[in-house]
Amino acid sequence: MPGISKKSSSMPASAIRKLVPFSDAAEAAGIKVYHLNVGAPDIKSPDCAINAVAERCKNMHHLSYTNSAGLMELRKGLVEKYYRKIGIDIEVSELLVDVAGSEAFSVAMQIVADAGDEIIVVEPFYTNYQTFAFLYGITLRTVSTDIRNGFAIPGIEAFEAVYTPGKTKAVLISNPCNPSGKLFTKEEMLQIGEFCRRHDLFLISDEVYREFCYTDEPHFSAMNIPGCGQNVILADSVSKRYNLCGARIGCMVSHNKDVMAAALKFAQSRLCPPVFGQYAAIGALDTPQSYFDEVRQEYILRRDTAVDALNAMEGVYAPRPYGAFYTVAELPIDDAESFAKWLLTEWRMDSETVMVTPATSFYRTQGIRNQVRIAYVLEVPQLKRAMHILEEALKAYPGRTI
Amino acid sequence: MPGISKKSSSMPASAIRKLVPFSDAAEAAGIKVYHLNVGAPDIKSPDCAINAVAERCKNMHHLSYTNSAGLMELRKGLVEKYYRKIGIDIEVSELLVDVAGSEAFSVAMQIVADAGDEIIVVEPFYTNYQTFAFLYGITLRTVSTDIRNGFAIPGIEAFEAVYTPGKTKAVLISNPCNPSGKLFTKEEMLQIGEFCRRHDLFLISDEVYREFCYTDEPHFSAMNIPGCGQNVILADSVSKRYNLCGARIGCMVSHNKDVMAAALKFAQSRLCPPVFGQYAAIGALDTPQSYFDEVRQEYILRRDTAVDALNAMEGVYAPRPYGAFYTVAELPIDDAESFAKWLLTEWRMDSETVMVTPATSFYRTQGIRNQVRIAYVLEVPQLKRAMHILEEALKAYPGRTI
Repeated sequence: MPGISKKSSSMPASAIRKLVPFSDAAEAAGIKVYHLNVGAPDIKSPDCAINAVAERCKNMHHLSYTNSAGLMELRKGLVEKYYRKIGIDIEVSELLVDVAGSEAFSVAMQIVADAGDEIIVVEPFYTNYQTFAFLYGITLRTVSTDIRNGFAIPGIEAFEAVYTPGKTKAVLISNPCNPSGKLFTKEEMLQIGEFCRRHDLFLISDEVYREFCYTDEPHFSAMNIPGCGQNVILADSVSKRYNLCGARIGCMVSHNKDVMAAALKFAQSRLCPPVFGQYAAIGALDTPQSYFDEVRQEYILRRDTAVDALNAMEGVYAPRPYGAFYTVAELPIDDAESFAKWLLTEWRMDSETVMVTPATSFYRTQGIRNQVRIAYVLEVPQLKRAMHILEEALKAYPGRTI
Repeated sequence: MPGISKKSSSMPASAIRKLVPFSDAAEAAGIKVYHLNVGAPDIKSPDCAINAVAERCKNMHHLSYTNSAGLMELRKGLVEKYYRKIGIDIEVSELLVDVAGSEAFSVAMQIVADAGDEIIVVEPFYTNYQTFAFLYGITLRTVSTDIRNGFAIPGIEAFEAVYTPGKTKAVLISNPCNPSGKLFTKEEMLQIGEFCRRHDLFLISDEVYREFCYTDEPHFSAMNIPGCGQNVILADSVSKRYNLCGARIGCMVSHNKDVMAAALKFAQSRLCPPVFGQYAAIGALDTPQSYFDEVRQEYILRRDTAVDALNAMEGVYAPRPYGAFYTVAELPIDDAESFAKWLLTEWRMDSETVMVTPATSFYRTQGIRNQVRIAYVLEVPQLKRAMHILEEALKAYPGRTI
């Protein structure tokens, strides 16, 4: 029997998804599981997006490939109806449609770094950054942030400390941040931009949660850092923005021509982005601002529900996030992975339980074992119930530390 | 200004798609281009596939992620309504939904080989095998076949000749073959299977054109090579089979548990396959056999139209293929890349021209510069017209060799 490659056998399993078999088993046994573990919102997709797909299905003869860079109608639409409206001034040639945000940052990482190179990330970070870094032989160097300080970046000297001349090629940041919900301020982004310019580094800015910000100021995109036009690569999602996660449509944006030429070669290797999803994305471009306003109000309500409930639990600490739909919470537990598994396999309240994501995998720093990521993606009554179940679980968990 | 990685700058551009800017320019100038260059059929998709998407759009609330391995309904459906029917006996756990055939073989290559390892391919081969091998640091070793011999494999000693103990990890073959249209026989596949078993190699069988076979015998899948259950990884397409190329749905199938466990990790890193496409694929499972019979008759007609026309041209040789919808033709030209570009930029007949793919990139062997791949994916009247334009072009081409 032939053996599989070292790369694929030692590849880390998704921490976010590796608990799925346990939740599947619980659900198969009739247990209701409140999914606080994945950023899979239950918010309605805009009608114009779904209708666009249905409309194209009428009298459809066959579904062809599109250009590898995506349908021109979608690329133009994104530039004119979305990016320019929010103050990101780009040309169509500076945007390429990807198979969701995942492909955008995965390809961006390969465009900036070879095997053996380094990329600086702000910790905690989205776990698949590490997965792709592993696959491409890239080393992630981390700038740590502190839950007790609201995950603010500690100052640019922390970036300098992990900068290796000749090896460091980029900073990769998600803003708003998955998993912490931290919204990096304009000042923080300007500092990072200055750092990248000084050392001639790329700045990969994962802004898939841009429309999920809860402050009064508009989101400050890395695309608008002055003087960083050749440094910044924007990894963006369309499907996430419109609660169409399954559509798998995102894009890469950059003023850097070499980056876009390389991105096209990667795009050609997978032929084209999913076309039904591209139709949905074209339709979604007509989403009215009121949709975003309503979604924003809803998430503020959910955030406050979750964060208030968490902080009311004994021994629990959760900062109030200003972006995305996650918060990282410190729990009075021995080990988040054991706790998350125990919730799925042991803990039941009226045949219900909750699922959370251990935050361990969002850190490269060892030893942070008492944090979990909570996605506040349920409606308020369900979220309240889920918080109640979590609170009772914490009292009963054999590995509790208080 | 930061420089992009060596990997992305030296990555080969898709030979199939790099002529696209020239065809775009021709079309923008009002020229009709007959696309014989890509395997993008104009055959109608099954109504049941399109209707399934339209039906799911009705009252759709939002489009969630699915399991990374795909919707269970689709996985079960593929096993029960497709694979078992055609004699490929697998369990649901032995199948995972991929983002088209491209992802399936791209991931399979990474599962079998590390950087520095070797994979044996039969030449000419699908050009993206080389693209992915480049990205993963895998060396392709080639077993050459001869157009004048109908691209038959030359005997297993040719495989032995390129086998490197400790380095060779797999054979990768497409059957029917893109680009040659060669349908490898049961005997050829058994020989390759025996070779893989003897040396403990994986056999990645890319069978995305399985339903496009033009002999009276059924297609012989690598999955049915006796004693090779742990060796074979099937890379398959759903969207290609049903003329839904843009849906981007394929799958990986293997009895090897380590392979499937690794495949799931790769699948999790990109979250899930496109969901509208999965709905189309679920609907497509109800496609009646009569659909395939009609498509087959149509392609036989197109193949004969193309191949007969090609062989009637002075100095042209094209074998009659028994699978897929391509043929490779030898033309009386100096250089296929120059010729293909000349067709798009210079040659016009009543404001029309044709686009073909230079076969150069389907070979690792240097020096084969007079072959092109012709995709017979147009309706017969259009195909006849395209052949006429090609015939006249060959008479006028400045680099003609007769």
